[in-house]
Amino acid sequence: MIVIMKINASQKAIDRVQREIEKLGYVPRPAPGETRTLVGVMGAKPLRGKQHLQALPEVSDVLEISTPYKLASREWHPQDTIVKVGSTSIGGNQVAVIAGPCSIESYDQTKEVGLAVKAAGGHFLRGGAFKPRTSPYSFQGLGVEGLKIIKQVGTEVDLPTVVEVTDTEVLEVTAEYTDMLQIGTRNMQNFTLLKAAARTQKPILLKRGMSATVKETILAAEYILNEGNEDVVLCERGIRTFVDHTRNTLDVSAIPAFNRLTHLPVIVDPSHAAGKRHKVLPLALAGVAAGAHGVMVEVHPNPAMALSDGPQQLVPADFQELIDRIRLVAKAVGKNLD
Amino acid sequence: MIVIMKINASQKAIDRVQREIEKLGYVPRPAPGETRTLVGVMGAKPLRGKQHLQALPEVSDVLEISTPYKLASREWHPQDTIVKVGSTSIGGNQVAVIAGPCSIESYDQTKEVGLAVKAAGGHFLRGGAFKPRTSPYSFQGLGVEGLKIIKQVGTEVDLPTVVEVTDTEVLEVTAEYTDMLQIGTRNMQNFTLLKAAARTQKPILLKRGMSATVKETILAAEYILNEGNEDVVLCERGIRTFVDHTRNTLDVSAIPAFNRLTHLPVIVDPSHAAGKRHKVLPLALAGVAAGAHGVMVEVHPNPAMALSDGPQQLVPADFQELIDRIRLVAKAVGKNLD
Amino acid sequence: MIVIMKINASQKAIDRVQREIEKLGYVPRPAPGETRTLVGVMGAKPLRGKQHLQALPEVSDVLEISTPYKLASREWHPQDTIVKVGSTSIGGNQVAVIAGPCSIESYDQTKEVGLAVKAAGGHFLRGGAFKPRTSPYSFQGLGVEGLKIIKQVGTEVDLPTVVEVTDTEVLEVTAEYTDMLQIGTRNMQNFTLLKAAARTQKPILLKRGMSATVKETILAAEYILNEGNEDVVLCERGIRTFVDHTRNTLDVSAIPAFNRLTHLPVIVDPSHAAGKRHKVLPLALAGVAAGAHGVMVEVHPNPAMALSDGPQQLVPADFQELIDRIRLVAKAVGKNLD
Amino acid sequence: MIVIMKINASQKAIDRVQREIEKLGYVPRPAPGETRTLVGVMGAKPLRGKQHLQALPEVSDVLEISTPYKLASREWHPQDTIVKVGSTSIGGNQVAVIAGPCSIESYDQTKEVGLAVKAAGGHFLRGGAFKPRTSPYSFQGLGVEGLKIIKQVGTEVDLPTVVEVTDTEVLEVTAEYTDMLQIGTRNMQNFTLLKAAARTQKPILLKRGMSATVKETILAAEYILNEGNEDVVLCERGIRTFVDHTRNTLDVSAIPAFNRLTHLPVIVDPSHAAGKRHKVLPLALAGVAAGAHGVMVEVHPNPAMALSDGPQQLVPADFQELIDRIRLVAKAVGKNLD
Repeated sequence: MIVIMKINASQKAIDRVQREIEKLGYVPRPAPGETRTLVGVMGAKPLRGKQHLQALPEVSDVLEISTPYKLASREWHPQDTIVKVGSTSIGGNQVAVIAGPCSIESYDQTKEVGLAVKAAGGHFLRGGAFKPRTSPYSFQGLGVEGLKIIKQVGTEVDLPTVVEVTDTEVLEVTAEYTDMLQIGTRNMQNFTLLKAAARTQKPILLKRGMSATVKETILAAEYILNEGNEDVVLCERGIRTFVDHTRNTLDVSAIPAFNRLTHLPVIVDPSHAAGKRHKVLPLALAGVAAGAHGVMVEVHPNPAMALSDGPQQLVPADFQELIDRIRLVAKAVGKNLD
Repeated sequence: MIVIMKINASQKAIDRVQREIEKLGYVPRPAPGETRTLVGVMGAKPLRGKQHLQALPEVSDVLEISTPYKLASREWHPQDTIVKVGSTSIGGNQVAVIAGPCSIESYDQTKEVGLAVKAAGGHFLRGGAFKPRTSPYSFQGLGVEGLKIIKQVGTEVDLPTVVEVTDTEVLEVTAEYTDMLQIGTRNMQNFTLLKAAARTQKPILLKRGMSATVKETILAAEYILNEGNEDVVLCERGIRTFVDHTRNTLDVSAIPAFNRLTHLPVIVDPSHAAGKRHKVLPLALAGVAAGAHGVMVEVHPNPAMALSDGPQQLVPADFQELIDRIRLVAKAVGKNLD
Repeated sequence: MIVIMKINASQKAIDRVQREIEKLGYVPRPAPGETRTLVGVMGAKPLRGKQHLQALPEVSDVLEISTPYKLASREWHPQDTIVKVGSTSIGGNQVAVIAGPCSIESYDQTKEVGLAVKAAGGHFLRGGAFKPRTSPYSFQGLGVEGLKIIKQVGTEVDLPTVVEVTDTEVLEVTAEYTDMLQIGTRNMQNFTLLKAAARTQKPILLKRGMSATVKETILAAEYILNEGNEDVVLCERGIRTFVDHTRNTLDVSAIPAFNRLTHLPVIVDPSHAAGKRHKVLPLALAGVAAGAHGVMVEVHPNPAMALSDGPQQLVPADFQELIDRIRLVAKAVGKNLD
Repeated sequence: MIVIMKINASQKAIDRVQREIEKLGYVPRPAPGETRTLVGVMGAKPLRGKQHLQALPEVSDVLEISTPYKLASREWHPQDTIVKVGSTSIGGNQVAVIAGPCSIESYDQTKEVGLAVKAAGGHFLRGGAFKPRTSPYSFQGLGVEGLKIIKQVGTEVDLPTVVEVTDTEVLEVTAEYTDMLQIGTRNMQNFTLLKAAARTQKPILLKRGMSATVKETILAAEYILNEGNEDVVLCERGIRTFVDHTRNTLDVSAIPAFNRLTHLPVIVDPSHAAGKRHKVLPLALAGVAAGAHGVMVEVHPNPAMALSDGPQQLVPADFQELIDRIRLVAKAVGKNLD
């Protein structure tokens, strides 16, 4: 951190800032200039006290330089993390494809999608059992019944499963029935849930909040890593902007940002950002081209009859084309989809 | 809803849309035009099936006209709701002032603030016991110890208390020790928490999510009302925008929007939006001028030593000025602060 | 500026940064830390070369500390600027009210509004002669004919006039017929127009761009001041955000920000932000409560028949109420509307 | 358009709406429902009068269904437009690469870049002669001298040239010296400039405004097409959002949106969005993967010494890698880069 004193701050104020820095356990390094003095805050341990210093007299501003996360930081852990889920994995030079219906609606629907995902070359089966819905009057998911269905189908089609956990009440049962836990965009800063989910030691797919910065997203991952669970995959799924031609704005530039700042794998979910089917393929390819380690999409045998998010779900034939094109784009950036 | 067919959609496609509307339990009303046909969807009950219709062949778009909420809607409930909390209330022509430290740090600190809030004419004492923090390394609050402190101080200074409940695990204990439960911005769409909090029958202060639309905020309130709890106060606390001169952008225009669309009272929290002390007063006054039924601000005896959000907390003398000026602005818009 | 070296940057790289800082004409002040070195860039003259330093080897980042504007800065010019327009003025403790139709449509319409503005106690008559319209098929304004009308009406009702100048081609004629030139939101960074308008020596009302930061807005004002024209009034008129309940989000918090960072007066235009009539009054009052030196609103004798922006224009009776309430709010913040 | 009456609107109000629709030259089609009546507005010609209808008594809202543009619309012109510039072109199945320095600084710098662009397989040479700069104290470009340099280098290396025109004053000279005119993001709604540039009959590269919607961008193109100039290429260059890890957020999803709504080619400019070199390659590839017809990037022989935008400019070796990878991604989406 650097404390920026006001123009012509008094020596007394500068001295006080230095004493406060020392009290916080750091070393102050004043650098007097022609119009104002800066005071560097030096120390090896994670820095705290920014707001405390900001509130001192004659302080103009305090700038952070160190990253506030460490376990998730590439500076401290330069090697790529590869997250293992059963016999498959996410990260490194492979591009993983996670697919399945928005909501698990029935065994037959899930089985049909599961077979299609497997046949096309997908790596994970996803599906929602507990659905966080904006309106209390919308379909809220099959619950535990849905968990049982996806577990059975996953076993039958030989694909590991990913299911969203919506709160601590359903955490235990969700962890029991699935291979990877998804934390949804609305829960990215539900810190109680992050910590409890981490302690199940299941791999975690952490979706970026719809208005979270890259830094806040990495800090949410840091909550999980800090509980001793290192199997975290980040997911870019679109952010809130002024744009009205699409549901959310897929922030493709977050992918190289995550790849530079953290060692964790990052995948892209184009379905929620697109909102409409014809945008899913272009955005999925864009994500892989930008460096994503995987793609998560929604597939439904009959989107027109889906109980949630119909317009954005792919039919199985679209999904096959998606996989085939992702394979080509993956090669263009030095990766494989196998 | 209105279904907009594609230009030159076939009669077969239009017929199918009509049949599907009937299956959903509504009455279709086709309106053929020169280049395209529209099909109105009529019915008295809450409308569902938008995505289903959107996914049908040759449908260009589906527009919603009805509001998706009913219990919170002013169209269905034109009278202002006044939320009673102990012997005081929020709503109607009174302007309520809720104040207290960001975090409860000790009995002495809380008592000092409580006395100042009471003396200046404030109506509620607020304070954080469980703090949702972006970084796992930041101060996380005193927990139950904090709840006990604020309950005691509230009783001693004779002010009802407001405390944020951060998850279902601490809901019961928080409800036991406080008069009004606050749902924070990160939890506005934590639907499990909304429903559980509603069932305590405590009055609820619901903060708008930092990227929630007005409609989504009202739908979150609808979750609470739908559990049979009618004592909901909305809170505008700033949204995420591109703006970098402030922490969040206080969306003052949401206040007249809430006042027109819902009968629930709405207050304004300028502290979190401002991020800095010198903006708290102007934004508080702006909120009241725009029609807010109250103001919530952070007050600390010594902001420079605060364990969280120091730079935005007022000292007691600032708070007195705030109350005095709010009283004048309240009069200008036909309200009172007493 | 401060140059932040990468962790463990080589001494060679640090030396090079110091030499480059010297070449740029500043004094480097290295501050070695445990994990990385910072190099302060000291000097009295305006700082340049940030991007140059950022591109040097082993540099992690370069932070700006000095403000990039000087003439508009309150640090260098602590006194409030009061802009005189004819016999009236904007700034200081007075609240100015500027009102008139969105578009000048006819002499009769403009005269009717002009009389109403004067009678209610307004200070300036505004009206659009050249209308920048999103669609080429919308009404584009009366042009020079409109200028003649507003000049005549302004004289007859004894109010100074404000008209938007849309490009350099119509600058001369607009300056000839009006007392104050308005630069619209789409032209805030039309630097050619800013400089040319400045050289007319007319007072200038500069609207914030709809996605401009506070700093960019002040820099646009700096372009005008730098041409020797000191009569600049800033105008907050709403920004682009994700919000969909209103046309633009009035950034009320920009008002205290402008008041702190610059000595120029700032007014608020609630009409364009609101988009609908029922929000204009609350937002106008909010702006004054937050510290604005004036309000600009659209008034039309018959908004339903207006050729542009009908839904947001006030009728004369609304305008009288607006003035009366502004007067009360102005008093609450220590100002007058006379 | 559809007029939505208020709940229980009177028959008198509904009749008036119908009469007003007829006066505007359209056919009203009322559709009475259980709680409210809708009135369709039918007609073949471009629709006007939305605001007029919105302002009528007992009207709740007016929804637009028709697109407000026609010449640029794919519904009316399904075939892809291919814009010819000299012997090369943009659009269809080719991916065009436009490259060059941010600012033309000297003949030697421009020649070095021009040779590198040609050698690597680029198709156009770009460079800035008049630079719109946020600060009046930044480098403003070489002006006409720069135009002469780029024309000479373009001829020598046999590449058509693209130069930004910043205002009508320099339009004629810029058109004289360059093959394609660029309209920058700050001028997207400078309608005077759009129309004047259109009339030069030069092909035009129109950059999306940094807070413009897709619809507003297409309407800006409509201004050009409406002057009889059909050679318009759109350019996605990043939008303003809350995101702080990058300068602008490249809205990759706008590319499939433009491709669906308009027949005009669309390219992507990753340099301005990225702000930093390491993001340029991923974003360029993402743009092509999402369906862009070309890429525009900044190349400089020595970015550390660039007079503007140093950190985002590629060195020639990076540029060669960019072209090679774009070629692979182009194939994955069924296009070529030759």
